[in-house]
Amino acid sequence: MATKKLSFLDSVFLLAENRKTPMHVGGVNLFTLPRGVDEQEFLHGVASSLRTADEFQPPFGDHLKTGPLGVAGPMYWERDSAIDVDYHIRHSALPKPGRYRELFALVSRLHGTLLDRNRPLWEMHLIEGLQNRQCAVYSKFHHAAIDGVRSMHLVQSMYSTSAQTRMTESPLSLKSGERYRAALKQLHAEPATDQELRNVAEALRARYDSGVQMYSALKRVTDAWRGKGGPLSMPWLNVPRSAINTPVDGARRFVAQSWPLERIRAVGKALGGTFNDAVLAMCAGALRLYLQNHGELPAQSLKAMVPVSLRVAGDVESSNAVGAISADLATNVKDAAKRFAAIQASTHAGKAMYAGMSASEAQLFMQLIQMPGLLLMPLGLTSRFPPYSTVISNVPGPRQPMYWNGARLNGIYPASIVTEGVALNITLVTYDQNVDFGIIACRRTMPQVQRLIDYMEQSLCELEEAAGLSVRGAKRKTTPTSKAKPKAKAKPKPKAKAKEKPKAKVKRAARRRG
Amino acid sequence: MATKKLSFLDSVFLLAENRKTPMHVGGVNLFTLPRGVDEQEFLHGVASSLRTADEFQPPFGDHLKTGPLGVAGPMYWERDSAIDVDYHIRHSALPKPGRYRELFALVSRLHGTLLDRNRPLWEMHLIEGLQNRQCAVYSKFHHAAIDGVRSMHLVQSMYSTSAQTRMTESPLSLKSGERYRAALKQLHAEPATDQELRNVAEALRARYDSGVQMYSALKRVTDAWRGKGGPLSMPWLNVPRSAINTPVDGARRFVAQSWPLERIRAVGKALGGTFNDAVLAMCAGALRLYLQNHGELPAQSLKAMVPVSLRVAGDVESSNAVGAISADLATNVKDAAKRFAAIQASTHAGKAMYAGMSASEAQLFMQLIQMPGLLLMPLGLTSRFPPYSTVISNVPGPRQPMYWNGARLNGIYPASIVTEGVALNITLVTYDQNVDFGIIACRRTMPQVQRLIDYMEQSLCELEEAAGLSVRGAKRKTTPTSKAKPKAKAKPKPKAKAKEKPKAKVKRAARRRG
Repeated sequence: MATKKLSFLDSVFLLAENRKTPMHVGGVNLFTLPRGVDEQEFLHGVASSLRTADEFQPPFGDHLKTGPLGVAGPMYWERDSAIDVDYHIRHSALPKPGRYRELFALVSRLHGTLLDRNRPLWEMHLIEGLQNRQCAVYSKFHHAAIDGVRSMHLVQSMYSTSAQTRMTESPLSLKSGERYRAALKQLHAEPATDQELRNVAEALRARYDSGVQMYSALKRVTDAWRGKGGPLSMPWLNVPRSAINTPVDGARRFVAQSWPLERIRAVGKALGGTFNDAVLAMCAGALRLYLQNHGELPAQSLKAMVPVSLRVAGDVESSNAVGAISADLATNVKDAAKRFAAIQASTHAGKAMYAGMSASEAQLFMQLIQMPGLLLMPLGLTSRFPPYSTVISNVPGPRQPMYWNGARLNGIYPASIVTEGVALNITLVTYDQNVDFGIIACRRTMPQVQRLIDYMEQSLCELEEAAGLSVRGAKRKTTPTSKAKPKAKAKPKPKAKAKEKPKAKVKRAARRRG
Repeated sequence: MATKKLSFLDSVFLLAENRKTPMHVGGVNLFTLPRGVDEQEFLHGVASSLRTADEFQPPFGDHLKTGPLGVAGPMYWERDSAIDVDYHIRHSALPKPGRYRELFALVSRLHGTLLDRNRPLWEMHLIEGLQNRQCAVYSKFHHAAIDGVRSMHLVQSMYSTSAQTRMTESPLSLKSGERYRAALKQLHAEPATDQELRNVAEALRARYDSGVQMYSALKRVTDAWRGKGGPLSMPWLNVPRSAINTPVDGARRFVAQSWPLERIRAVGKALGGTFNDAVLAMCAGALRLYLQNHGELPAQSLKAMVPVSLRVAGDVESSNAVGAISADLATNVKDAAKRFAAIQASTHAGKAMYAGMSASEAQLFMQLIQMPGLLLMPLGLTSRFPPYSTVISNVPGPRQPMYWNGARLNGIYPASIVTEGVALNITLVTYDQNVDFGIIACRRTMPQVQRLIDYMEQSLCELEEAAGLSVRGAKRKTTPTSKAKPKAKAKPKPKAKAKEKPKAKVKRAARRRG
């Protein structure tokens, strides 16, 4: 039977996984049902299309195979010849009244359970019972099997730019995957210029791709990080121990919200930075408000790990091709414009450092720096030495409206990974005219993470004001998500939690000590 | 802070637990909504009553505390001072059309995920969206914290015999627990005669209650079981390696059904045996049909582990007080009457063996024999040496109709534990006029476990015929569950699975080899 060896990084996601830190990524896709179509009929239709495939493409059709050393030794993907497809594709429903609140509660739960390692490492939940003729799909993949960009390729291959297109075969099938790759090859005829880079990456992977060398590699990485000077030590420098950087447990909280892409882009432009700088500034302002309102704002600025894709155009097969820079979020700066400037300076410096490196040095550095939390976890060091305060990850999605069997895709809200010592992850997808944010947090560490959504809006308004932009005009551009939850916005504290608030901090602190 | 040390048996449930074999028990309680009450209103009402408690009684308010040795060392229950009650009490909904099929699918999933060991080890899911004005509650407790009888005490304290009673305080609260115990004490004024037995059990517990001695105790137990003659070796003798006795994975299938208690009791009486003999014969016939129809009926008869309660009347606090006998299910006997006679002879012999022992010997034997799968699991021996073929467990429930805030309790369907090598567990509760069966199985090993429900009916009919009882008359007494799923009965094979059938066995066999 054909098998494929896991790369070093892919296997780290399995090695680092435990009950408290599941290592799957995923998210919620939100749809509006096509006119005149019954919800149940629609969902049963897509479910049966999804199920009917002679063979499933990777990762849907492959399970993990380990040798006598288990996850510590070499691991392989192996074709699964007895897929129980009803196990992977599931129907779920929301309790009434079927608001986003109920959806987020369900997704929080689903994201907090481990995938079954005896099966292909994915689940897809078709969710009914939403208000306003919407429905949702929550998907979940092991990060060893997939990264954000790969999952966007899956989105592209699954959905259509036309409302008229109907599924004729399962987009999870081997055939569908092959056809998508063929179509993509036509678009990116020659990946020649990137090929060299790709070869370096492959060579590096091979170098670390041995179960025996893994621990010595990890050791070298941690040595470099723990203060032997040079740029490699950067991620650990001046990272405050904030309330976000605690040991975590397995339960999660998920919240999501869309903002018009144009609003955020305009801020970046007006302040002389990039779209990504504006995203970071928007999140930084929100984190400052959150920590301030909880009386937990550290004197030192928070640092964010910002992943960068290393995937070459046309590569839809590698499961993980991710590098990273460390960005200073300037959460200790009160003024929004100054905060933006500080963030911009930091991302500039991050990029400049790469510019001074040879292609292979850049690759090596990114290999070493990427997901440092994961690399340290097997050594048990992350919560004592937080490498960064949080992760803010930007995944480019399709830039035009997409449809699934005629249902309009309203938003793509990612749900990523919380690691030991880093209890918060903010991931965003640029889709159509929006930026869709998905925030995942440790349920215990950040019981009020939903407030970040309001603080992000507040932070964006501050930035718009600082940039001299018309805040009122921009505010009118509401998004599908924001429109439907006016109540949550007006009254962001659910009663039970609001009551707990004064005690919560003390209790959490007590727990950390115990 | 007050702590309570876990008994040896309680800790074994934690020690033996892994991703493939979660060690929680639970089940589904089915209700009919009170007239004129809206489902959402009802469920939100009970949820908020459940949530409001100053302090929660054990096990709801206690989490696990381990020392430096983790689960291998001594463990304690410790009061949790920061319970996140929304984490434990959850709203769920069924996708349309909201049949029992959808309910069972949800319960199967919920039962297949591990409880979070950082929190009190329980979850309670309020489930809406059932047809016919029914709703359901699925509960889940770690077996280290609770056993079947204890959970029946919880049912009794939670529900009322009157449709007029309304909850005034959370039945999960410390106060409510204290009041229930006080009321029970009045009913069972003197547990004097049982006190000696209880003391022996306590002494034995103390004897095994050491993390250091645990492995040597396990070793002695396995030595005795593995053929040093005498009655102690009995459970392993002549146990066939049937299709039920395979390695398992973490996913589950749950099905449930009620039968009129009178039908089963009448069979036992007419054939000169007990109610429990009739239950075993009914299950034995069903298992014979199942294995026969899958071409997997072993030449040797299946053996069932039949747990017996060791709890003394009035004891509502011990979490596990369970012994066991091993029953020959005579699945190799074609004739229903002869099969009944063989089962009866075997249960007679099982009880007779206890009769010949002193009280302390009986206690010791039961301590040793109970949950042998669990005891062997840490040594990795169960799937190679199946101690029994399945578990059939009878839990006495309330014998009159019960109500929850006015909602009639229709049935109590237990969901128990699947262990490595024993992929099926049948547990039944006698409630009101019915016997409520809850069947839990490894999803991979027994993909068609739902057929057992039909085979149980067929088996009961055979027994009624053999006993010369009027089968037609009895059949008319349909139960809440059977009434609502006539389709499932007429056509027990869901299409997708029926299609798979010819290949299924081969694939499973291949997987086992691989």
